[in-house]
Amino acid sequence: MELADRLGRLGTETAFAVAATAADWSSRGNEVFPFHLGDLNLPTPSNIAAAMQRAVAEGRTGYCPNAGIQPLREVLAKTLGQQRSVSFGPEHVAIQPGGKPVIGKFLRSVMNAGDEVLYPNPGFPIYESQIEFNDGVAVPYRYVNSGHGFEIDLEYLESRITQRTRALILNDQQNPLATEMSDDERSALADLAIKHNLWVLADEAYFDIRYAGESKSIVSIPGMQERTVILYTFSKKYAMTGWRLGAAIGPAEIIERIACLNTNEESCTTQFVQWAGVEAITGDQSGAKSILSTLKSRRDTAIGQIKSIPGMRVHTPSSAFYLFPEVSETMARTGHTDVADFALAALHNTGVSFCTRRHFGRPLQGETGNYIRLAYSGINGPEIECGLSRLGTWIQHS
Amino acid sequence: MELADRLGRLGTETAFAVAATAADWSSRGNEVFPFHLGDLNLPTPSNIAAAMQRAVAEGRTGYCPNAGIQPLREVLAKTLGQQRSVSFGPEHVAIQPGGKPVIGKFLRSVMNAGDEVLYPNPGFPIYESQIEFNDGVAVPYRYVNSGHGFEIDLEYLESRITQRTRALILNDQQNPLATEMSDDERSALADLAIKHNLWVLADEAYFDIRYAGESKSIVSIPGMQERTVILYTFSKKYAMTGWRLGAAIGPAEIIERIACLNTNEESCTTQFVQWAGVEAITGDQSGAKSILSTLKSRRDTAIGQIKSIPGMRVHTPSSAFYLFPEVSETMARTGHTDVADFALAALHNTGVSFCTRRHFGRPLQGETGNYIRLAYSGINGPEIECGLSRLGTWIQHS
Repeated sequence: MELADRLGRLGTETAFAVAATAADWSSRGNEVFPFHLGDLNLPTPSNIAAAMQRAVAEGRTGYCPNAGIQPLREVLAKTLGQQRSVSFGPEHVAIQPGGKPVIGKFLRSVMNAGDEVLYPNPGFPIYESQIEFNDGVAVPYRYVNSGHGFEIDLEYLESRITQRTRALILNDQQNPLATEMSDDERSALADLAIKHNLWVLADEAYFDIRYAGESKSIVSIPGMQERTVILYTFSKKYAMTGWRLGAAIGPAEIIERIACLNTNEESCTTQFVQWAGVEAITGDQSGAKSILSTLKSRRDTAIGQIKSIPGMRVHTPSSAFYLFPEVSETMARTGHTDVADFALAALHNTGVSFCTRRHFGRPLQGETGNYIRLAYSGINGPEIECGLSRLGTWIQHS
Repeated sequence: MELADRLGRLGTETAFAVAATAADWSSRGNEVFPFHLGDLNLPTPSNIAAAMQRAVAEGRTGYCPNAGIQPLREVLAKTLGQQRSVSFGPEHVAIQPGGKPVIGKFLRSVMNAGDEVLYPNPGFPIYESQIEFNDGVAVPYRYVNSGHGFEIDLEYLESRITQRTRALILNDQQNPLATEMSDDERSALADLAIKHNLWVLADEAYFDIRYAGESKSIVSIPGMQERTVILYTFSKKYAMTGWRLGAAIGPAEIIERIACLNTNEESCTTQFVQWAGVEAITGDQSGAKSILSTLKSRRDTAIGQIKSIPGMRVHTPSSAFYLFPEVSETMARTGHTDVADFALAALHNTGVSFCTRRHFGRPLQGETGNYIRLAYSGINGPEIECGLSRLGTWIQHS
């Protein structure tokens, strides 16, 4: 039986192939150090689980409104508004089964067939996939490695704006780059969005995963609230990846349509999970603090190890849980010119498993450098130390 | 900011407006008898909730495979295959956050822009909405009231098949008609699907809500398994509507693409809810039996009352939890010619709240008769008796 042509435009997270290769290597009796996982290997704080159990016991097991339970919409509106110095009400919040659904629902709500959408590349691969699957034209913008992080190539980005450009996807606290915009960059992007009348999807999945300084949102800049939809997720801050709880937060007229997409696509998000979300936001925050402190310690361990690996260059990020080192020199030492070959050789020689730049969007023409992504969310400190030490030894002796 | 043109093709469940009207009437101090609710007001069996709690305690709170946890795919494949006398493996099952997501994902997987899809009308309104929103042409087929249920107008259905017809949506154990196909109807539909090489979505949401006889699936007919995707849900049988757990079951090549849509649209279904699903299928079934027995008793109460309401004609269904009486004569007695006016008058005079035929797809040209839908899933036996008794008294004295 024939399938729909549109499936030919559907991408995926190719990082899952890395997980499969690592699992295969492990099943053959080899030790694997999983730096490829975007998941957290930390438990959800117990007060959140307890709140869900109470909700089930109270019979909160039926359908709820398509946009979510009112208390969760209210606490999210209040908390996110306060953090970002803007005023949100419950009418600005549509609860979702995770942060990811916001990407497709935003695109389906703002994009006509043939419209162009700017998205970060390297970046989360679902942007590219969902723009194209939903009949849009995916227009990548790029980054420049400044040595102390990555900067958006603003001139290039502006050069790619046309009459058909409808939206701009931003992911500050960026995956996989683990970099952030400066105030100047954020302000320049807001100017562009306003000048060209663009919708903005602000993917703020890692907004609260922060080790120093303070996260800022483009929504705080005057003129931006009316054109910005924030992707919020409980997944990272509260180690709730498998719970599937997030939200779209934006102008009431688009949120009302996104809620109607909820009605069409999944009715509502699991009700008792939403009640747990109320506890996550309003209850004891010591669990979230402990998660953050664990991640910071892992980051420091990883950075410390990487400094002694010959030819590997990386900045120390203040947010998210990724490192994105440049490895051209390292690859040369081990006799590799292809980053995928290098990754496989690293797995087979040291057990260290990671994604490469290629798992984060189709590489752009003229790109230079070779990059890998080391995630420290799904691997404990001692394994980080041991794995990267082995990686260093292998490279040193190559 | 301008929204996407495609949103103009997005429908919804207009039944929510009935719920809002009823809530408004109730908030003004009036008693309301909620026959409009498609939700169940019964608790989920406690063994299922306990299994979820165990899963959380065991740390099953992270991401899981996009197609679902292997044990749930396996038990669903085995159980559904056995019930339907076909062989399913886990590769034929993609777990979903509810039954509803299967509708859109099936359509996006088989339908090109401009393709026609046959769907039941009256029927679940999301079929019409999702066909049109996803660029298809929604082609309704109709039913004939035989007095002892409704029969699909097969001649009419076949007359609507063209070169562009790509799929046929079936909903045996039908919502809102509470009718079922005869073996002859099912067999004729299978012949048509095979002759015209159509994909079939078999929405089997009410397959296990059955008071007499045995449910049959079109997938059991030779030549159908390779073209049929079953919509399965835990919502009705186990009173798990708010849990959001269901599955698409069909040929491996389409299930693999539906799982890729999972990756794109929501990553995966809440992990610990899936472990509860394993318990639902393999554990103690006394909870499900008790739910069914409660529903049967409610059906009998409702049918008993309706028999004494002047001019209201209904058959006694053997499945699902709806009644779909013809009310033209009843309306005439109360001086109404419009079914929506009649519904509002019934609410204001008796507190009885229900949906009408108009909430289940756009009425077809030349339709005769006036119908309402009484759901007995969200209202207890004594309230069914009291509400319908008041409705009868009002009509008798009009």
